[in-house]
Amino acid sequence: MKDARVTLVTLASDDLERSAGFYAALGWVRTPAGNDTVIFMQGEGIVLSIFGRDDFVKDVGVSFEGGCPFPSIALALNLASEADVDRLFDAAVAAGGAPVKRPEPTFWGGYSGYVSDLDGHLWELAHNPFFPLDERGHLDLLTPASGSDA
Amino acid sequence: MKDARVTLVTLASDDLERSAGFYAALGWVRTPAGNDTVIFMQGEGIVLSIFGRDDFVKDVGVSFEGGCPFPSIALALNLASEADVDRLFDAAVAAGGAPVKRPEPTFWGGYSGYVSDLDGHLWELAHNPFFPLDERGHLDLLTPASGSDA
Repeated sequence: MKDARVTLVTLASDDLERSAGFYAALGWVRTPAGNDTVIFMQGEGIVLSIFGRDDFVKDVGVSFEGGCPFPSIALALNLASEADVDRLFDAAVAAGGAPVKRPEPTFWGGYSGYVSDLDGHLWELAHNPFFPLDERGHLDLLTPASGSDA
Repeated sequence: MKDARVTLVTLASDDLERSAGFYAALGWVRTPAGNDTVIFMQGEGIVLSIFGRDDFVKDVGVSFEGGCPFPSIALALNLASEADVDRLFDAAVAAGGAPVKRPEPTFWGGYSGYVSDLDGHLWELAHNPFFPLDERGHLDLLTPASGSDA
């Protein structure tokens, strides 16, 4: 079940600080990994990524028709390498998923793509070299990585 | 961070068996916990609940206006007791969340409510006496519970 995980959930937000306050009130811990456009809240074995709604739409790279709200949530799987991203993206498409955005290098120095499942639920498959995974394959953005200058 | 977890993600589906096949192809393991209306797929420390779209709408108990698709995903937090469900539901509402469905006994023998965050993302808060949590607070639907007759 190595690939059967959820390492991060992206939630589109209209007000990052307000949303971060909401999740902090429920026990999630703000991490130093964020910036002006995204706030990462650490939980037990999983991270919430609070991301501006417009930035999220741009990141997924598709527009939705008809005046309905864009899907505002994506499940994400952080993987150990770019090759793992490609492999799992291809497997998802082979299984009938829709290739929303083929994996490509990102402006933040990682590698990421989006695929949707058979009912349109978005998954981001990503390799982020700045987000090491722990021995369980979980993201831990509170424990400084060994060898990191951060 | 005891309450800062995601134990299960509900994905609304138009075809349960087809969706289960998709996730099985990606490494998720079908569990014996499901029935005719829901299929539970076990991953590392998290479970996907593949749930019929109409049943999901009924379960949440609200209707959405304007011809837009109903939100088709909910994050879920399984908690150790009904009191924990009430406590966290109240905390979420106190933090500005919307009380979508107050916690109440369910037809499946548990206790559950829905609250949405500040941007409308649905969270189910639930106590399921048939779904014991492991020592990390994760759902494990593949390992038979000790003392269970199942």
